[in-house]
Amino acid sequence: MGFEKTERVIELNAQVEAFMQEHIYPREHDWEEFTLDPDNRWQVPGWFDELRAKAKAQGLWNLFLPDDYQPWSPGLNNVEIATIFETMSKVTWAQPVFNCNAPDRGNMEVLAKYGTAEQQEQWLMPLLAGEIRSAYAMTEPQVASSDATNMELEIVRDGDEYVLNGRKWWTTGAISPRCKVMLVMGKSNPENDRHHQHSTILVPRDTPGVKLVRELRVFDNLHSPGGEAELLFDNVRVPVSNMIKGEGCGFEIAQGRLGPGRFQYAMTFVGLAQRCLELMCQRAEERVAFGEKLSKKTSVQHEIARSRCEIEQCRLLTLQAADVMDKQGVKAAMPYISMVKIVGPTMCQNVADRAMQVFGGAGVCQDTLIPTVFTHARFCRIADGPDEVHMSQLGKLTIRDLVSAS
Amino acid sequence: MGFEKTERVIELNAQVEAFMQEHIYPREHDWEEFTLDPDNRWQVPGWFDELRAKAKAQGLWNLFLPDDYQPWSPGLNNVEIATIFETMSKVTWAQPVFNCNAPDRGNMEVLAKYGTAEQQEQWLMPLLAGEIRSAYAMTEPQVASSDATNMELEIVRDGDEYVLNGRKWWTTGAISPRCKVMLVMGKSNPENDRHHQHSTILVPRDTPGVKLVRELRVFDNLHSPGGEAELLFDNVRVPVSNMIKGEGCGFEIAQGRLGPGRFQYAMTFVGLAQRCLELMCQRAEERVAFGEKLSKKTSVQHEIARSRCEIEQCRLLTLQAADVMDKQGVKAAMPYISMVKIVGPTMCQNVADRAMQVFGGAGVCQDTLIPTVFTHARFCRIADGPDEVHMSQLGKLTIRDLVSAS
Amino acid sequence: MGFEKTERVIELNAQVEAFMQEHIYPREHDWEEFTLDPDNRWQVPGWFDELRAKAKAQGLWNLFLPDDYQPWSPGLNNVEIATIFETMSKVTWAQPVFNCNAPDRGNMEVLAKYGTAEQQEQWLMPLLAGEIRSAYAMTEPQVASSDATNMELEIVRDGDEYVLNGRKWWTTGAISPRCKVMLVMGKSNPENDRHHQHSTILVPRDTPGVKLVRELRVFDNLHSPGGEAELLFDNVRVPVSNMIKGEGCGFEIAQGRLGPGRFQYAMTFVGLAQRCLELMCQRAEERVAFGEKLSKKTSVQHEIARSRCEIEQCRLLTLQAADVMDKQGVKAAMPYISMVKIVGPTMCQNVADRAMQVFGGAGVCQDTLIPTVFTHARFCRIADGPDEVHMSQLGKLTIRDLVSAS
Amino acid sequence: MGFEKTERVIELNAQVEAFMQEHIYPREHDWEEFTLDPDNRWQVPGWFDELRAKAKAQGLWNLFLPDDYQPWSPGLNNVEIATIFETMSKVTWAQPVFNCNAPDRGNMEVLAKYGTAEQQEQWLMPLLAGEIRSAYAMTEPQVASSDATNMELEIVRDGDEYVLNGRKWWTTGAISPRCKVMLVMGKSNPENDRHHQHSTILVPRDTPGVKLVRELRVFDNLHSPGGEAELLFDNVRVPVSNMIKGEGCGFEIAQGRLGPGRFQYAMTFVGLAQRCLELMCQRAEERVAFGEKLSKKTSVQHEIARSRCEIEQCRLLTLQAADVMDKQGVKAAMPYISMVKIVGPTMCQNVADRAMQVFGGAGVCQDTLIPTVFTHARFCRIADGPDEVHMSQLGKLTIRDLVSAS
Repeated sequence: MGFEKTERVIELNAQVEAFMQEHIYPREHDWEEFTLDPDNRWQVPGWFDELRAKAKAQGLWNLFLPDDYQPWSPGLNNVEIATIFETMSKVTWAQPVFNCNAPDRGNMEVLAKYGTAEQQEQWLMPLLAGEIRSAYAMTEPQVASSDATNMELEIVRDGDEYVLNGRKWWTTGAISPRCKVMLVMGKSNPENDRHHQHSTILVPRDTPGVKLVRELRVFDNLHSPGGEAELLFDNVRVPVSNMIKGEGCGFEIAQGRLGPGRFQYAMTFVGLAQRCLELMCQRAEERVAFGEKLSKKTSVQHEIARSRCEIEQCRLLTLQAADVMDKQGVKAAMPYISMVKIVGPTMCQNVADRAMQVFGGAGVCQDTLIPTVFTHARFCRIADGPDEVHMSQLGKLTIRDLVSAS
Repeated sequence: MGFEKTERVIELNAQVEAFMQEHIYPREHDWEEFTLDPDNRWQVPGWFDELRAKAKAQGLWNLFLPDDYQPWSPGLNNVEIATIFETMSKVTWAQPVFNCNAPDRGNMEVLAKYGTAEQQEQWLMPLLAGEIRSAYAMTEPQVASSDATNMELEIVRDGDEYVLNGRKWWTTGAISPRCKVMLVMGKSNPENDRHHQHSTILVPRDTPGVKLVRELRVFDNLHSPGGEAELLFDNVRVPVSNMIKGEGCGFEIAQGRLGPGRFQYAMTFVGLAQRCLELMCQRAEERVAFGEKLSKKTSVQHEIARSRCEIEQCRLLTLQAADVMDKQGVKAAMPYISMVKIVGPTMCQNVADRAMQVFGGAGVCQDTLIPTVFTHARFCRIADGPDEVHMSQLGKLTIRDLVSAS
Repeated sequence: MGFEKTERVIELNAQVEAFMQEHIYPREHDWEEFTLDPDNRWQVPGWFDELRAKAKAQGLWNLFLPDDYQPWSPGLNNVEIATIFETMSKVTWAQPVFNCNAPDRGNMEVLAKYGTAEQQEQWLMPLLAGEIRSAYAMTEPQVASSDATNMELEIVRDGDEYVLNGRKWWTTGAISPRCKVMLVMGKSNPENDRHHQHSTILVPRDTPGVKLVRELRVFDNLHSPGGEAELLFDNVRVPVSNMIKGEGCGFEIAQGRLGPGRFQYAMTFVGLAQRCLELMCQRAEERVAFGEKLSKKTSVQHEIARSRCEIEQCRLLTLQAADVMDKQGVKAAMPYISMVKIVGPTMCQNVADRAMQVFGGAGVCQDTLIPTVFTHARFCRIADGPDEVHMSQLGKLTIRDLVSAS
Repeated sequence: MGFEKTERVIELNAQVEAFMQEHIYPREHDWEEFTLDPDNRWQVPGWFDELRAKAKAQGLWNLFLPDDYQPWSPGLNNVEIATIFETMSKVTWAQPVFNCNAPDRGNMEVLAKYGTAEQQEQWLMPLLAGEIRSAYAMTEPQVASSDATNMELEIVRDGDEYVLNGRKWWTTGAISPRCKVMLVMGKSNPENDRHHQHSTILVPRDTPGVKLVRELRVFDNLHSPGGEAELLFDNVRVPVSNMIKGEGCGFEIAQGRLGPGRFQYAMTFVGLAQRCLELMCQRAEERVAFGEKLSKKTSVQHEIARSRCEIEQCRLLTLQAADVMDKQGVKAAMPYISMVKIVGPTMCQNVADRAMQVFGGAGVCQDTLIPTVFTHARFCRIADGPDEVHMSQLGKLTIRDLVSAS
C-alpha cells in the first residue's frame, strides 16, 4: 500500500534525472533563445537532435508507452511512468528529447492499439524511432468542440478513397516541417447514433487540399517549433486503407486516447510546478528586500507551503489515476482522469503565479522558465476542453454515483 | 502500490458502516436536539451509552490505536485506521461511540507509550474501557501557544508533590462530568534548553485548586457535552508519581502526540466533507428552482466537482501521511502531517460552504449537520495552531529541503 | 462629485458615534451573555429599553426612513443614511437601539408607502414609536423561495375576511413576544399573470391559527431575542381591511421593500467588517508570536491590506447604490442593489475570517464579536436569496445591457 | 455627492468614444499583426501616426494632464480624466494615439512640475507635441527595487557634468527609436539621509555609454514597438543642467510621479476589464454548447456577475482616489492610490481569465485582445512594485491609522 517507487523506477528515474542535469538544464535558455528567434521559426537547434540520439542510445526513449503495448513498450506501468514523467517535465521542452511528447504520444498509442499492420509499418515505426512527428486534428473553430459529437468535418467515401472537407484548428505540431501525418477526426456516418457517427483517419501532412489557414498565437506566442495550426481540408483524398479501426469508431478512439493522455498531462504539470517551487525556494533564500531575506517573510513562507500542499496533492491524485488505470483499466479510472484534468493546470498556474511574485521583475522575463510555465498551464485550462466542461461532467457523474448509492 | 484496502479493513469498515446506518444516522438529529437543549447541559442522552456498549461488544472499539501499542491495540496500522476513521466521521458525534474521539485518543496514546505501569493501571485502563474521559491542557490565554516554548504554567517540585500554578484554556472536554483526569503541560525546568523546560503531568480533574474560570463558547456554541474550558490552576498539588516520563519531557510528548492526532483529524474532515458532498448531491437531484433541478445547473455541477476533487486529494494526502508513518515513523512523516493539518480543515470548510449554498435556508438551520460541520472545520483552522503557524513551518522546512538539495 | 459627507451628516454621525461609545460598546459583552443565557430566552435586558429611550430622546431614531416618507422621516437621503448605518452597525445588536433594525425597517417603509390611514394608525405609529415589533413572512420551506412566484401560501377571500393557509419559515423576529404584527405574502389571485398573483396582508401575531412549528437554529444559535420562526397558517382569518394596497400587489410591494433593504444590509456589513478590521489591527499591534509583533509579519499586513481594500470598495459600491436611489429611484438602482447584495456578506465573512486567524483562540470564542459577525455574514449569503440567485439575475441583466448596447 | 459626470466630460468622452469606434476598434487586429511581425520590430504602422494627427487635430490630446499644469493642461481634473481614461483604454494600444501613454505621461508631469524653463523647452514641448518618446529608468536588476532606497546607480558630479555608472532594467519604451530622452534615478548623495540620497536626471537616449544590454521579453513577448530595456550606464556624462529640481530630490520626484500614475493605471485596467466583460457577454449570447447558449448556463452568468461587481468596485475606488487627489492632494490620497494599485491589475487579470474560459480556444489566440489583457494585467502585478510590497505598506499604514485612532 502507498505509492512507493519500485527498484526499476528508482534506477530509471535516476538516469533520466542525470540526463536532465547533464544535458537539459544547461541548455534551458539556449532553447528559448533559439526558438523565439524569428529566423529559426519552425526549426529546432542542431544540438537538440544530438540530445535525442543520446537519449535513445541510453534507452531513455518511448518510456510513456505502458507495458500492454508489446513489443514496443519499454515495459513500465502507468504508476512507474508517472514518476519518470514528472522528472522529464521539469524543463518545458524536454519531453521530445525522450520521444515522450504530445501529441505523438497519443498518436502512437492509437496506432499501436488500433492500427493495421500496414499502418503501423508506415507510421508507427518512424514515430517510435523519432524520425517523424505527427498531429491530431480534432477541434473545429465553428462549434463547441468539447462536445465531440459536434464535429462537422465531412468524411465521405468515394470508391477507394475517403474525401475530407472541413476545418480544424488547434492542431498542435502541424506547422512543423517534421510533421508527416495527422490523425483526423470527422463525421463519416451521420446516419448512425450519436456516438458512432465519427471516424479517425490518417492523412499525410502533404496531401493535396490540406491548407494552412493560419498559425495560431497563444498568448501572442507562435509555439514554434511545433505550432498550433488552423487547417482547411478542401477535398482532401486518402485511400480507404487509411481509416483507423473502422467507420464510426472515432469516438471510441478519442476516448481511449484521452485517458492516458490526461494523466500524462497532469504529471507534466506536477513536474513543472515542482520546478517552479524549487526556483521560488532558491530565490527566497537569496533575495533580500526591506532588510531581510524573502524566506524570513511569513507571506513568502505561506506561499511556498500552499504550493507544496497543492503539488503533493495533485501528484498523489495523478498517481492514483495511474494506479487505477493499471489495475482496473481506463474506464474505471475515468473519474480520476477527470479530476487530474481539472486539478493539474490550475494547480500549476497557481504555483507559477506565486513563484513569479517571489521573483519580481525576474519572474516575468526570460530569466526563468516560470512565465512560460504560467502561460502554458493557463492555456491548458482550455486545451483539451475547458475546465468547465470537465467539471460539469464530473459533477454529473458524482451526483449519479452518490445519489444512486445512498 | 496504490492505496488499496486490505481484506481486513474492507470487512471492518463494512461493520462500522453498518453500525452507522443502523444506529447513528437515525439518531443524528436526536443528538443535536438533546445536546443543544440547555436542560441537558454537559449530559449525554441515555441511548448514547447503550450505543457505546453495542459498539464495544462488536469489537468496534479503540480502533484508532495503531498496532505498535500492544497489548491494547486492535492491530490496525495507520493506513487501515484512516479508512475506518473516514467512515466513523460522517456524523459529527459518532467517534466517541467507538471510543475513538479526541482528546482521549491522544491521551491514551501518551499513556500507552510513556506511562508507568501504575499510571496505565489507574488511567489508561478505564479510558480504554470507555469508563472515564480525559482532557489535555496545553494552550494558555496570555501567550501565543502555537509556539509551545511559550507555555508559562509553573510546575514546581515540593517534596513528594508537584505544585501547579497558571492558566489554561481550550481544554477540550474538561467541563464534562465524565472527565476524570487531565494531562497538563507546564514549565518545570526553566534552567534547561528551550525544548527541555516543560513537563506533562497527570492531574485528576477534581484536584483542589483546579478552578473552572469560564466555559468558552465557540461560534456562540458551548460544545456540550464536552465543552472548552478556561481553567485556573491555583496551587494544585499532585504526587510526583503523576509526572509522565520525566521532567523536561513535555515537548517530546507533545510532539509524539501531535503526529497521529493530526492525521486522524484530517481523516475526520475527509469523512465530514464526504458526508456534506453526499447531502449536496441528493439535494441537487431533489430540488427544483427556476424551472429545473439544481443538478442541471452548471454552477451546481461545478461546485460538486470542485468538492470531489478537493476531498479526494485530501484523502490521498492523509493516506500518504499514514503510510509514511507506518513505514518510516512519525518523524519522516512530519511534512505530510503538516500538510494534512493545513489542508484538512480548509477543505472541509469549503465543501460545507458549497453544500450550504445548494441547500439554501435548509443549509444553515438544524435540518442538516452541515452548519455544524462548517463551524467545526472553521474552528479547527485555529485549534491546534492557526493555519499560518503550520504554513510558516512547512514553508521553512520546504526551503531547507529544496535549497540544500539543489 | 465624490462621496463627501454633508455637514448635517457629519454632526449626526458624531452624535451616533458618541452614543455608541458611551452606551453600546461598554455593554457589548453584556448583551451577548444575557441573550445566550437560556434563562433569558426571547427577552432583552432591562438596560436595553433604557438605551432605546435615550436614543429616542436624542433624536437618534428612525434615521433609516428616507426623506420622501414625510411626515415620519427625519429627513436624510439614502447616501446620508448610509454613513449613519455604518456607524450604528459596528456592534451587532445596536440597530434596534435606534429603531433601525430589520425587518421592522422594511415593514415601516411598506406601511408608510402603501398603508391605509387606518393601517398606519394601528401599526405604523407604534412601530415608529418603537412600542412593538413586526415580522415579514415570505419564504416557504417546500419551494425555492428566491423565485418569489413560487410562494404557495393561500389567501382566499371569504366575505369580509381573508383566510390564510400555508407554511412560512425564516420569519425573522416572529418568536419575540414583542412582535405584534406580521406582513404575510401569499397567493391570492392564481388566475392573474405571474407577477400579479400574490398579495401582502397584515396578520396580527396573536391571530388564531398562527402556529409556531419550530424555532430555527442558525449555526446552532436560536438568534434570541428575535428568533427565526417556522410558522403554520392554519385557517388564519383577518379582516379584508388588512390587505395592503390591494390584491395582486404582493410582488410590487416585495420589490419596493427589497431595494432599500439590501442597501441597508450592505452598509451593515461594511460597519461590521470595519469593526473587525479595527480589532484585527489592535490585536496585530499587541500580540507577540515567534519573537515579533504580529503587525511585523508580512502575512498579517497583507490580510489587513486585503481587508481594507475590500471594505472600501464595498462601502463605495453601497454609497453608489444609495446615490442612484436618491437621484434616479429604486428601479435605476437595481443593478447596484444586486451588486451590494452579492458583495456585502462575502466581503464581511472574509474580513471576519481573517480577523479570527489574527486573534487565534481568542478569535473564535466570546472574547470578541468576530465569530458572531462571521456566522451572521455567512448566514446572509443565503438569507434574502442565495448569492447564486442574485448572480444569475445580475449576469442576465448585464448580458442584456452590454449585448444590446454594442 | 456621488460620481456623476460633468457636462464637459460627457461631451469629451463621447468624442473619444466616437474616435475609438471610427478609428481604433476597426484596426485592433491590424496593430497586433503588425507589431508581432518580426519584420516590423520596434516600428509602428504608418496609419498609426495618421491617427495621432487626427486625434491631436480634434483636441483629444494630452487629456491626462490635470488642470493644475497650466498652460499645458486641457483643463480636466482627475475625476474627469478617469472617465476619459477608461474609454481610451478599451483597446490595449489606444492611449498613445491620444498622447496619453505611460511612461511619457509621468515624465511630462515631472517636467511640467519640476523642470527648468530650458528643460521644458527642450524635452517637454516635443513630448507634449507627440514628436518624441521618453523613458523612465528606475528599477535595477541586482536589488529589490520596490524599496527605492536600494537604488545603486551612481551619479557623481565631475565639473560641469554628472557621470552615471550602473545598471537599469524594465526601462519601458527605451528600445523604440522614437525614444529620445530618459529620466534616470540614481544615488548622488550617499551622505544624506535615506530619502535624500537620490536624484533624477535627464539623459538623452543617444548619450555615449548608454548601452542596451538586452531586450526583456515579458511572457515571451518583446512588447514591440516600445520594449522593456535592460541598460548599462557606463561612464555616461550629461551636463549639470540636466539635473531635475536638484540633487537629492529623486525620492520626492518619484513619489509625486507615482500618485497620478497609479490612478491612471488603475483606470486603464477598468477599461480593459470592461472591454473583456463586453466581449464575454457577446460570446455568451452567441455560442451554443451542449444544447444551449452559454448565456443560459448559471456558471457563465455567475462569472459575468462576479466580473461586473469587481469592475464596478474598482472603478469607484479609482474615482475616489482621483477625487481625493483633486480635493485634498496626492498625499491625502495615498491610501487610495495604494488600494487601486493593489486592486486594479488583479481585478483585470481575473476578469480576463473568466472571459478566456467563456471563449474557449478563441479566448487564448489572436481572435480577441483578451490574452494580451491577461498577460498585461499579470505583468502589472509586478511592474511598479509587486502587490506584496504595496500590501505591506497599506497594511502598516492601516494599523497606524486604526490603532492610534482607537
